[in-house]
Amino acid sequence: MRLGTVRRNGTTQAFRQDGDTTVYLPAKDVGELLQRDDWRTLSGEPGPAPQHAELEMPILRPGKILCAGLNYYAHAEEVGQEVPKYPTIFTKYANALVGPTDDVVLPAASTKIDWEAELTVVIGSRVRQADEAVARAAIAGYTVMNDVSVRDWQGRTSEWFQGKNWDRMTPVGPVVVTADELDPEAGLAVECELDGVTKQSGNTSDLIFSCAKLVSYVSEFMTLEPGDLLATGTPAGVGLARKPREWIPAGAQMVTRIEGIGELRNHCVPEVKG
Amino acid sequence: MRLGTVRRNGTTQAFRQDGDTTVYLPAKDVGELLQRDDWRTLSGEPGPAPQHAELEMPILRPGKILCAGLNYYAHAEEVGQEVPKYPTIFTKYANALVGPTDDVVLPAASTKIDWEAELTVVIGSRVRQADEAVARAAIAGYTVMNDVSVRDWQGRTSEWFQGKNWDRMTPVGPVVVTADELDPEAGLAVECELDGVTKQSGNTSDLIFSCAKLVSYVSEFMTLEPGDLLATGTPAGVGLARKPREWIPAGAQMVTRIEGIGELRNHCVPEVKG
Repeated sequence: MRLGTVRRNGTTQAFRQDGDTTVYLPAKDVGELLQRDDWRTLSGEPGPAPQHAELEMPILRPGKILCAGLNYYAHAEEVGQEVPKYPTIFTKYANALVGPTDDVVLPAASTKIDWEAELTVVIGSRVRQADEAVARAAIAGYTVMNDVSVRDWQGRTSEWFQGKNWDRMTPVGPVVVTADELDPEAGLAVECELDGVTKQSGNTSDLIFSCAKLVSYVSEFMTLEPGDLLATGTPAGVGLARKPREWIPAGAQMVTRIEGIGELRNHCVPEVKG
Repeated sequence: MRLGTVRRNGTTQAFRQDGDTTVYLPAKDVGELLQRDDWRTLSGEPGPAPQHAELEMPILRPGKILCAGLNYYAHAEEVGQEVPKYPTIFTKYANALVGPTDDVVLPAASTKIDWEAELTVVIGSRVRQADEAVARAAIAGYTVMNDVSVRDWQGRTSEWFQGKNWDRMTPVGPVVVTADELDPEAGLAVECELDGVTKQSGNTSDLIFSCAKLVSYVSEFMTLEPGDLLATGTPAGVGLARKPREWIPAGAQMVTRIEGIGELRNHCVPEVKG
Protein backbone atom coordinates (compact mmCIF):
# COMPACT_ATOMS: atom_id res chain seq x y z
CA MET A 1 0.00 0.00 0.00
CA ARG A 2 1.20 3.49 -0.86
CA LEU A 3 0.13 6.76 0.79
CA GLY A 4 0.74 10.15 -0.71
CA THR A 5 -0.36 13.74 -1.00
CA VAL A 6 -1.29 15.52 -4.24
CA ARG A 7 -1.38 19.23 -5.05
CA ARG A 8 -4.46 20.15 -7.06
CA ASN A 9 -6.43 23.37 -7.54
CA GLY A 10 -4.42 25.26 -4.95
CA THR A 11 -4.98 22.71 -2.21
CA THR A 12 -3.66 19.31 -1.17
CA GLN A 13 -5.26 15.93 -0.56
CA ALA A 14 -4.11 12.56 0.71
CA PHE A 15 -4.52 9.41 -1.34
CA ARG A 16 -4.03 5.68 -0.83
CA GLN A 17 -3.03 3.17 -3.49
CA ASP A 18 -3.47 -0.56 -3.30
CA GLY A 19 -2.33 -2.31 -6.46
CA ASP A 20 -3.89 -0.39 -9.38
CA THR A 21 -6.58 1.28 -7.27
CA THR A 22 -6.21 4.89 -6.11
CA VAL A 23 -8.57 6.38 -3.55
CA TYR A 24 -8.58 10.09 -2.63
CA LEU A 25 -9.21 10.55 1.08
CA PRO A 26 -10.78 13.22 3.35
CA ALA A 27 -7.43 14.48 4.72
CA LYS A 28 -5.21 17.31 3.54
CA ASP A 29 -2.05 15.19 3.70
CA VAL A 30 -0.63 11.90 4.94
CA GLY A 31 0.18 13.60 8.25
CA GLU A 32 -3.50 14.27 8.93
CA LEU A 33 -4.42 10.81 7.64
CA LEU A 34 -2.04 9.07 10.08
CA GLN A 35 -3.75 10.79 13.03
CA ARG A 36 -6.68 8.43 12.33
CA ASP A 37 -6.63 4.81 13.50
CA ASP A 38 -8.54 3.78 10.35
CA TRP A 39 -6.06 5.15 7.79
CA ARG A 40 -5.71 1.73 6.15
CA THR A 41 -9.44 1.36 5.48
CA LEU A 42 -10.91 4.89 5.50
CA SER A 43 -13.30 5.39 2.57
CA GLY A 44 -12.70 7.97 -0.14
CA GLU A 45 -13.29 8.77 -3.80
CA PRO A 46 -11.74 6.43 -6.35
CA GLY A 47 -9.81 8.23 -9.08
CA PRO A 48 -6.96 8.00 -11.53
CA ALA A 49 -3.42 7.54 -10.23
CA PRO A 50 -1.72 10.92 -9.69
CA GLN A 51 1.08 12.07 -11.99
CA HIS A 52 4.54 12.23 -10.41
CA ALA A 53 4.63 16.00 -11.01
CA GLU A 54 1.47 16.44 -8.90
CA LEU A 55 3.00 14.87 -5.81
CA GLU A 56 3.55 17.02 -2.72
CA MET A 57 5.75 15.99 0.19
CA PRO A 58 3.60 13.35 1.95
CA ILE A 59 3.53 15.10 5.36
CA LEU A 60 3.34 18.88 5.15
CA ARG A 61 4.46 19.78 8.66
CA PRO A 62 5.93 16.80 10.50
CA GLY A 63 5.92 17.30 14.27
CA LYS A 64 9.49 16.03 14.39
CA ILE A 65 12.09 15.39 11.73
CA LEU A 66 14.83 13.31 13.30
CA CYS A 67 17.92 12.29 11.37
CA ALA A 68 20.51 9.64 12.12
CA GLY A 69 24.11 10.35 11.19
CA LEU A 70 26.94 7.90 10.49
CA ASN A 71 24.60 4.93 10.09
CA TYR A 72 26.08 3.01 7.15
CA TYR A 73 29.30 1.03 7.61
CA ALA A 74 30.71 2.24 4.29
CA HIS A 75 29.83 5.89 5.01
CA ALA A 76 31.35 5.86 8.50
CA GLU A 77 34.49 4.48 6.89
CA GLU A 78 34.61 7.07 4.08
CA VAL A 79 34.42 9.97 6.54
CA GLY A 80 37.04 8.38 8.80
CA GLN A 81 34.78 7.56 11.76
CA GLU A 82 34.77 4.36 13.79
CA VAL A 83 31.61 2.27 13.85
CA PRO A 84 29.54 4.10 16.46
CA LYS A 85 28.29 2.49 19.65
CA TYR A 86 25.21 4.73 19.77
CA PRO A 87 23.13 6.36 17.03
CA THR A 88 23.95 10.01 16.33
CA ILE A 89 20.69 11.97 16.18
CA PHE A 90 20.16 15.50 14.92
CA THR A 91 17.07 17.35 13.70
CA LYS A 92 15.37 19.40 11.05
CA TYR A 93 12.24 21.55 11.07
CA ALA A 94 9.54 21.67 8.41
CA ASN A 95 10.84 24.90 6.86
CA ALA A 96 13.69 22.85 5.38
CA LEU A 97 11.41 20.55 3.38
CA VAL A 98 10.32 20.64 -0.27
CA GLY A 99 8.28 18.22 -2.33
CA PRO A 100 9.51 15.43 -4.62
CA THR A 101 9.73 17.60 -7.77
CA ASP A 102 10.19 21.07 -6.25
CA ASP A 103 13.30 23.14 -6.72
CA VAL A 104 15.95 22.61 -4.06
CA VAL A 105 17.31 26.03 -3.05
CA LEU A 106 21.11 26.17 -2.88
CA PRO A 107 22.16 28.77 -0.26
CA ALA A 108 24.06 31.78 -1.64
CA ALA A 109 26.20 31.77 1.52
CA SER A 110 27.99 28.52 0.62
CA THR A 111 29.44 26.61 -2.30
CA LYS A 112 29.99 23.41 -0.26
CA ILE A 113 26.56 21.87 -0.62
CA ASP A 114 26.41 18.09 -0.54
CA TRP A 115 23.89 15.32 -1.20
CA GLU A 116 22.76 12.59 1.22
CA ALA A 117 20.15 10.08 -0.01
CA GLU A 118 18.28 8.57 2.95
CA LEU A 119 15.62 5.98 3.67
CA THR A 120 13.16 7.70 6.02
CA VAL A 121 10.86 6.07 8.55
CA VAL A 122 7.31 7.45 8.94
CA ILE A 123 5.91 6.88 12.42
CA GLY A 124 2.35 5.52 12.55
CA SER A 125 1.57 5.30 16.24
CA ARG A 126 2.54 6.95 19.49
CA VAL A 127 5.45 5.18 21.20
CA ARG A 128 7.69 5.71 24.21
CA GLN A 129 10.25 3.28 25.65
CA ALA A 130 9.45 0.74 22.98
CA ASP A 131 11.47 -2.44 22.53
CA GLU A 132 12.41 -3.32 18.96
CA ALA A 133 9.26 -5.35 18.32
CA VAL A 134 6.98 -2.54 19.50
CA ALA A 135 9.11 -0.02 17.61
CA ARG A 136 8.81 -2.05 14.40
CA ALA A 137 5.02 -2.16 14.78
CA ALA A 138 4.97 1.64 15.20
CA ILE A 139 6.46 2.19 11.74
CA ALA A 140 3.68 3.11 9.28
CA GLY A 141 6.01 3.01 6.31
CA TYR A 142 8.99 4.45 4.51
CA THR A 143 9.73 7.39 2.26
CA VAL A 144 12.79 9.01 0.63
CA MET A 145 14.68 12.12 1.77
CA ASN A 146 17.77 13.87 0.52
CA ASP A 147 19.43 15.43 3.56
CA VAL A 148 21.14 18.14 1.51
CA SER A 149 23.92 19.55 3.71
CA VAL A 150 25.81 22.84 3.78
CA ARG A 151 29.18 21.43 4.82
CA ASP A 152 30.96 24.61 5.85
CA TRP A 153 28.10 25.70 8.09
CA GLN A 154 27.70 22.11 9.37
CA GLY A 155 31.33 22.18 10.47
CA ARG A 156 31.32 25.64 12.09
CA THR A 157 30.46 24.12 15.48
CA SER A 158 30.05 20.63 16.95
CA GLU A 159 26.30 20.73 16.30
CA TRP A 160 25.38 20.02 12.66
CA PHE A 161 21.97 21.74 12.82
CA GLN A 162 22.94 24.96 11.03
CA GLY A 163 24.24 23.00 8.03
CA LYS A 164 21.05 20.97 7.73
CA ASN A 165 18.17 23.41 8.10
CA TRP A 166 18.28 25.95 5.31
CA ASP A 167 14.80 26.77 4.01
CA ARG A 168 13.57 24.60 1.11
CA MET A 169 16.71 22.49 0.81
CA THR A 170 15.53 18.99 1.82
CA PRO A 171 13.32 17.12 -0.68
CA VAL A 172 11.08 14.36 0.67
CA GLY A 173 8.64 11.90 -0.93
CA PRO A 174 7.39 10.87 -3.43
CA VAL A 175 5.11 8.57 -1.41
CA VAL A 176 5.05 6.50 1.76
CA VAL A 177 5.17 2.74 1.17
CA THR A 178 3.67 0.85 4.09
CA ALA A 179 5.91 -1.30 6.25
CA ASP A 180 4.21 -4.58 5.31
CA GLU A 181 5.51 -4.14 1.73
CA LEU A 182 9.16 -3.29 2.39
CA ASP A 183 11.97 -4.87 4.39
CA PRO A 184 14.95 -2.51 4.72
CA GLU A 185 16.93 -5.12 6.65
CA ALA A 186 16.74 -7.49 3.69
CA GLY A 187 18.17 -4.69 1.53
CA LEU A 188 16.87 -1.81 -0.56
CA ALA A 189 19.07 0.02 -3.08
CA VAL A 190 19.61 3.70 -2.14
CA GLU A 191 20.89 5.93 -4.93
CA CYS A 192 21.68 9.55 -5.69
CA GLU A 193 22.40 10.86 -9.18
CA LEU A 194 23.51 14.33 -10.23
CA ASP A 195 22.95 15.21 -13.89
CA GLY A 196 22.64 11.52 -14.70
CA VAL A 197 25.88 10.48 -12.96
CA THR A 198 25.52 8.06 -10.05
CA LYS A 199 27.08 9.52 -6.89
CA GLN A 200 25.70 7.16 -4.26
CA SER A 201 24.77 3.54 -4.76
CA GLY A 202 24.28 1.94 -1.37
CA ASN A 203 21.97 -0.58 0.18
CA THR A 204 20.02 -0.54 3.43
CA SER A 205 21.48 -3.96 4.27
CA ASP A 206 24.59 -1.92 5.21
CA LEU A 207 22.74 0.04 7.95
CA ILE A 208 24.51 -0.04 11.31
CA PHE A 209 21.33 0.58 13.34
CA SER A 210 18.16 -0.84 11.77
CA CYS A 211 15.00 1.22 11.43
CA ALA A 212 13.38 -0.59 14.37
CA LYS A 213 16.51 -0.15 16.47
CA LEU A 214 16.58 3.60 15.75
CA VAL A 215 12.90 4.03 16.65
CA SER A 216 13.42 2.02 19.84
CA TYR A 217 16.52 4.05 20.77
CA VAL A 218 14.87 7.44 20.27
CA SER A 219 11.75 6.29 22.10
CA GLU A 220 13.88 5.66 25.18
CA PHE A 221 14.06 9.43 25.69
CA MET A 222 11.17 10.97 23.76
CA THR A 223 7.63 10.20 22.68
CA LEU A 224 7.25 9.63 18.94
CA GLU A 225 3.92 10.44 17.34
CA PRO A 226 2.10 9.65 14.07
CA GLY A 227 3.60 11.60 11.17
CA ASP A 228 7.02 12.09 12.76
CA LEU A 229 9.90 11.36 10.36
CA LEU A 230 13.18 9.63 11.13
CA ALA A 231 15.78 9.69 8.37
CA THR A 232 18.14 6.78 8.78
CA GLY A 233 21.44 8.18 7.51
CA THR A 234 23.18 8.14 4.15
CA PRO A 235 25.32 5.49 2.42
CA ALA A 236 28.82 6.09 1.04
CA GLY A 237 29.45 8.40 -1.88
CA VAL A 238 28.86 11.88 -0.44
CA GLY A 239 30.77 14.76 -2.00
CA LEU A 240 32.64 15.56 1.22
CA ALA A 241 34.37 12.17 1.12
CA ARG A 242 35.35 12.25 -2.57
CA LYS A 243 38.87 13.01 -3.70
CA PRO A 244 38.76 15.71 -4.84
CA ARG A 245 35.69 16.87 -2.96
CA GLU A 246 32.57 17.55 -5.02
CA TRP A 247 29.58 19.74 -4.38
CA ILE A 248 26.16 20.21 -6.00
CA PRO A 249 26.59 22.60 -8.92
CA ALA A 250 24.03 25.33 -9.52
CA GLY A 251 21.45 24.05 -11.96
CA ALA A 252 22.04 20.35 -11.27
CA GLN A 253 19.26 17.82 -11.69
CA MET A 254 19.34 15.63 -8.59
CA VAL A 255 17.60 12.25 -8.49
CA THR A 256 17.27 10.44 -5.17
CA ARG A 257 15.92 6.92 -5.49
CA ILE A 258 15.10 4.06 -3.13
CA GLU A 259 14.15 0.63 -4.40
CA GLY A 260 10.48 -0.14 -3.86
CA ILE A 261 9.52 3.46 -2.96
CA GLY A 262 10.34 5.71 -5.91
CA GLU A 263 12.35 8.80 -6.63
CA LEU A 264 12.75 12.48 -5.93
CA ARG A 265 13.62 14.57 -9.00
CA ASN A 266 14.76 18.04 -8.03
CA HIS A 267 16.32 20.93 -9.88
CA CYS A 268 18.94 22.58 -7.66
CA VAL A 269 18.67 26.35 -8.09
CA PRO A 270 20.72 29.14 -6.55
CA GLU A 271 19.02 31.13 -3.83
CA VAL A 272 17.82 34.58 -4.83
CA LYS A 273 18.34 36.83 -1.81
CA GLY A 274 15.25 38.87 -0.92
CA MET B 1 3.76 44.22 29.33
CA ARG B 2 3.59 40.54 30.36
CA LEU B 3 1.96 37.72 28.39
CA GLY B 4 1.13 34.37 29.89
CA THR B 5 -1.06 31.29 29.78
CA VAL B 6 -3.20 30.02 32.68
CA ARG B 7 -4.59 26.56 33.32
CA ARG B 8 -8.17 26.68 34.56
CA ASN B 9 -11.09 24.26 34.46
CA GLY B 10 -9.24 21.77 32.32
CA THR B 11 -8.36 24.26 29.62
CA THR B 12 -5.87 27.04 29.02
CA GLN B 13 -6.17 30.73 28.19
CA ALA B 14 -3.78 33.52 27.32
CA PHE B 15 -3.65 36.71 29.36
CA ARG B 16 -1.93 40.08 29.10
CA GLN B 17 -0.80 42.25 32.02
CA ASP B 18 -0.03 45.95 31.85
CA GLY B 19 0.85 47.37 35.24
CA ASP B 20 -1.82 46.10 37.68
CA THR B 21 -4.36 45.27 34.98
CA THR B 22 -4.86 41.69 33.81
CA VAL B 23 -6.95 40.93 30.72
CA TYR B 24 -7.90 37.37 29.69
CA LEU B 25 -7.81 36.99 25.92
CA PRO B 26 -9.58 34.87 23.27
CA ALA B 27 -6.56 32.59 22.62
CA LYS B 28 -5.64 29.24 24.17
CA ASP B 29 -2.03 30.27 24.78
CA VAL B 30 0.57 32.92 24.00
CA GLY B 31 1.52 30.94 20.90
CA GLU B 32 -1.95 31.42 19.39
CA LEU B 33 -2.01 35.05 20.57
CA LEU B 34 1.26 35.86 18.78
CA GLN B 35 -0.20 34.66 15.48
CA ARG B 36 -2.33 37.83 15.57
CA ASP B 37 -0.91 41.20 14.60
CA ASP B 38 -3.05 42.88 17.28
CA TRP B 39 -1.73 40.91 20.26
CA ARG B 40 -0.71 44.11 22.08
CA THR B 41 -4.20 45.64 21.92
CA LEU B 42 -6.64 42.74 21.45
CA SER B 43 -9.66 43.10 23.76
CA GLY B 44 -10.50 40.54 26.41
CA GLU B 45 -12.12 40.09 29.83
CA PRO B 46 -10.51 41.93 32.75
CA GLY B 47 -9.91 39.73 35.77
CA PRO B 48 -7.73 39.15 38.80
CA ALA B 49 -4.03 38.45 38.31
CA PRO B 50 -3.38 34.69 38.05
CA GLN B 51 -1.67 32.82 40.86
CA HIS B 52 1.85 31.54 40.10
CA ALA B 53 0.63 27.96 40.57
CA GLU B 54 -1.95 28.43 37.80
CA LEU B 55 0.63 29.35 35.18
CA GLU B 56 1.14 27.05 32.21
CA MET B 57 4.14 27.24 29.88
CA PRO B 58 3.38 30.36 27.80
CA ILE B 59 3.52 28.58 24.40
CA LEU B 60 2.12 25.05 24.42
CA ARG B 61 3.66 23.73 21.20
CA PRO B 62 6.35 26.04 19.84
CA GLY B 63 7.02 25.42 16.16
CA LYS B 64 10.74 25.51 16.88
CA ILE B 65 12.76 25.41 20.07
CA LEU B 66 16.29 26.49 19.21
CA CYS B 67 19.03 26.56 21.81
CA ALA B 68 22.40 28.26 21.76
CA GLY B 69 25.30 26.50 23.45
CA LEU B 70 28.52 27.99 24.85
CA ASN B 71 27.19 31.55 24.83
CA TYR B 72 28.51 33.03 28.08
CA TYR B 73 32.19 33.88 28.39
CA ALA B 74 32.39 32.41 31.90
CA HIS B 75 30.60 29.20 30.88
CA ALA B 76 32.78 28.63 27.81
CA GLU B 77 35.78 29.03 30.12
CA GLU B 78 34.46 26.63 32.82
CA VAL B 79 33.93 23.85 30.27
CA GLY B 80 37.35 24.47 28.70
CA GLN B 81 36.16 25.82 25.34
CA GLU B 82 37.58 28.81 23.49
CA VAL B 83 35.34 31.77 22.79
CA PRO B 84 33.43 30.57 19.73
CA LYS B 85 33.49 32.36 16.42
CA TYR B 86 29.97 31.20 15.53
CA PRO B 87 26.93 30.40 17.67
CA THR B 88 26.40 26.71 18.40
CA ILE B 89 22.74 25.86 17.75
CA PHE B 90 20.87 22.71 18.75
CA THR B 91 17.18 21.97 19.19
CA LYS B 92 14.38 20.63 21.31
CA TYR B 93 10.84 19.56 20.52
CA ALA B 94 7.71 20.39 22.51
CA ASN B 95 7.57 16.96 24.18
CA ALA B 96 10.51 18.07 26.33
CA LEU B 97 8.68 21.04 27.88
CA VAL B 98 6.83 21.40 31.18
CA GLY B 99 5.25 24.43 32.82
CA PRO B 100 6.73 26.76 35.44
CA THR B 101 5.57 24.76 38.48
CA ASP B 102 5.25 21.28 36.96
CA ASP B 103 7.36 18.34 38.04
CA VAL B 104 10.57 17.93 36.05
CA VAL B 105 11.00 14.24 35.24
CA LEU B 106 14.51 12.91 35.91
CA PRO B 107 15.24 10.01 33.51
CA ALA B 108 15.78 6.63 35.17
CA ALA B 109 18.45 5.86 32.55
CA SER B 110 20.92 8.42 33.95
CA THR B 111 22.20 9.89 37.19
CA LYS B 112 24.13 12.69 35.46
CA ILE B 113 21.35 15.23 35.09
CA ASP B 114 22.42 18.86 35.12
CA TRP B 115 20.81 22.32 35.30
CA GLU B 116 21.14 25.17 32.78
CA ALA B 117 19.24 28.41 33.49
CA GLU B 118 18.65 30.32 30.24
CA LEU B 119 17.15 33.56 29.03
CA THR B 120 14.85 32.61 26.14
CA VAL B 121 13.79 34.76 23.22
CA VAL B 122 10.16 34.54 22.01
CA ILE B 123 9.82 35.40 18.34
CA GLY B 124 6.98 37.80 17.48
CA SER B 125 7.15 38.11 13.71
CA ARG B 126 8.27 36.13 10.69
CA VAL B 127 11.88 36.85 9.73
CA ARG B 128 14.45 35.55 7.27
CA GLN B 129 17.87 37.02 6.53
CA ALA B 130 17.35 39.78 9.05
CA ASP B 131 20.11 42.18 10.06
CA GLU B 132 20.46 42.85 13.78
CA ALA B 133 18.02 45.78 13.78
CA VAL B 134 15.30 43.77 12.01
CA ALA B 135 16.07 40.78 14.23
CA ARG B 136 15.71 42.92 17.38
CA ALA B 137 12.33 44.17 16.16
CA ALA B 138 11.18 40.56 15.61
CA ILE B 139 11.63 39.68 19.30
CA ALA B 140 8.22 39.76 21.03
CA GLY B 141 9.76 39.25 24.45
CA TYR B 142 11.67 37.01 26.80
CA THR B 143 10.96 34.08 29.07
CA VAL B 144 12.92 31.66 31.28
CA MET B 145 13.95 28.09 30.47
CA ASN B 146 15.99 25.51 32.31
CA ASP B 147 17.71 23.41 29.65
CA VAL B 148 18.00 20.37 31.94
CA SER B 149 20.61 18.09 30.37
CA VAL B 150 21.36 14.38 30.60
CA ARG B 151 25.12 14.66 30.38
CA ASP B 152 26.03 11.04 29.66
CA TRP B 153 23.55 10.82 26.79
CA GLN B 154 24.56 14.30 25.59
CA GLY B 155 28.15 13.05 25.33
CA ARG B 156 27.41 9.72 23.63
CA THR B 157 27.85 11.30 20.17
CA SER B 158 28.88 14.69 18.78
CA GLU B 159 25.25 15.79 18.59
CA TRP B 160 23.81 16.88 21.95
CA PHE B 161 20.16 16.32 20.96
CA GLN B 162 19.66 13.02 22.81
CA GLY B 163 20.80 14.58 26.09
CA LYS B 164 18.42 17.50 25.75
CA ASN B 165 15.07 16.06 24.67
CA TRP B 166 13.77 13.72 27.32
CA ASP B 167 10.02 14.06 27.78
CA ARG B 168 8.90 16.60 30.43
CA MET B 169 12.41 17.63 31.49
CA THR B 170 12.62 21.30 30.37
CA PRO B 171 10.61 23.85 32.38
CA VAL B 172 9.69 27.12 30.66
CA GLY B 173 7.85 30.27 31.76
CA PRO B 174 6.45 31.71 33.98
CA VAL B 175 5.49 34.54 31.57
CA VAL B 176 6.78 36.40 28.54
CA VAL B 177 7.93 39.95 29.27
CA THR B 178 7.77 42.12 26.16
CA ALA B 179 10.99 43.39 24.64
CA ASP B 180 10.22 47.07 25.30
CA GLU B 181 10.49 46.37 29.05
CA LEU B 182 13.75 44.41 29.20
CA ASP B 183 17.28 44.98 27.94
CA PRO B 184 19.37 41.81 28.17
CA GLU B 185 22.44 43.60 26.83
CA ALA B 186 22.34 46.01 29.77
CA GLY B 187 22.33 42.98 32.05
CA LEU B 188 19.78 40.72 33.73
CA ALA B 189 20.70 38.41 36.60
CA VAL B 190 20.25 34.70 35.67
CA GLU B 191 20.12 32.28 38.59
CA CYS B 192 19.55 28.63 39.37
CA GLU B 193 19.04 27.28 42.89
CA LEU B 194 18.76 23.68 44.03
CA ASP B 195 17.14 23.16 47.45
CA GLY B 196 17.83 26.78 48.31
CA VAL B 197 21.54 26.71 47.38
CA THR B 198 22.59 29.02 44.55
CA LYS B 199 24.30 27.04 41.75
CA GLN B 200 24.32 29.60 38.97
CA SER B 201 24.47 33.35 39.38
CA GLY B 202 25.28 34.91 36.03
CA ASN B 203 24.28 37.95 34.08
CA THR B 204 23.17 38.40 30.48
CA SER B 205 25.77 41.18 30.11
CA ASP B 206 28.23 38.23 29.83
CA LEU B 207 26.50 36.86 26.68
CA ILE B 208 28.90 36.26 23.78
CA PHE B 209 26.23 36.58 21.07
CA SER B 210 23.40 38.99 21.96
CA CYS B 211 19.75 38.00 21.52
CA ALA B 212 19.47 40.12 18.35
CA LYS B 213 22.70 38.66 16.98
CA LEU B 214 21.42 35.09 17.57
CA VAL B 215 18.10 35.79 15.86
CA SER B 216 19.91 37.43 12.94
CA TYR B 217 22.35 34.50 12.66
CA VAL B 218 19.67 31.81 12.65
CA SER B 219 17.55 33.82 10.20
CA GLU B 220 20.41 33.63 7.71
CA PHE B 221 19.50 29.98 7.11
CA MET B 222 15.93 29.48 8.30
CA THR B 223 12.65 31.36 8.61
CA LEU B 224 11.65 32.13 12.16
CA GLU B 225 7.97 32.44 12.97
CA PRO B 226 5.82 33.88 15.78
CA GLY B 227 5.94 31.66 18.86
CA ASP B 228 9.30 30.10 18.07
CA LEU B 229 11.67 29.98 21.05
CA LEU B 230 15.39 30.58 21.09
CA ALA B 231 17.17 29.80 24.38
CA THR B 232 20.35 31.84 24.59
CA GLY B 233 22.68 29.54 26.51
CA THR B 234 23.56 29.15 30.17
CA PRO B 235 25.99 31.06 32.41
CA ALA B 236 28.72 29.48 34.53
CA GLY B 237 27.95 27.18 37.43
CA VAL B 238 26.65 24.00 35.78
CA GLY B 239 27.15 20.71 37.61
CA LEU B 240 29.37 19.28 34.88
CA ALA B 241 32.00 21.96 35.46
CA ARG B 242 32.07 21.69 39.27
CA LYS B 243 34.83 19.93 41.12
CA PRO B 244 33.64 17.43 42.13
CA ARG B 245 30.86 17.25 39.56
CA GLU B 246 27.31 17.62 40.86
CA TRP B 247 23.98 16.46 39.51
CA ILE B 248 20.33 17.12 40.29
CA PRO B 249 19.34 14.82 43.15
CA ALA B 250 15.98 13.05 43.05
CA GLY B 251 13.46 15.14 44.92
CA ALA B 252 15.30 18.44 44.52
CA GLN B 253 13.41 21.73 44.38
CA MET B 254 14.87 23.68 41.47
CA VAL B 255 14.34 27.42 41.13
CA THR B 256 15.32 29.14 37.87
CA ARG B 257 15.09 32.93 38.01
CA ILE B 258 15.75 35.80 35.63
CA GLU B 259 15.64 39.40 36.79
CA GLY B 260 12.61 41.24 35.45
CA ILE B 261 10.82 38.09 34.24
CA GLY B 262 10.21 35.80 37.21
CA GLU B 263 10.97 32.27 38.27
CA LEU B 264 10.34 28.62 37.53
CA ARG B 265 9.81 26.46 40.64
CA ASN B 266 10.02 22.79 39.81
CA HIS B 267 10.14 19.61 41.86
CA CYS B 268 12.56 17.15 40.21
CA VAL B 269 11.04 13.68 40.44
CA PRO B 270 12.43 10.33 39.30
CA GLU B 271 10.83 8.88 36.19
CA VAL B 272 8.42 6.02 36.79
CA LYS B 273 8.85 3.62 33.87
CA GLY B 274 5.60 2.62 32.24
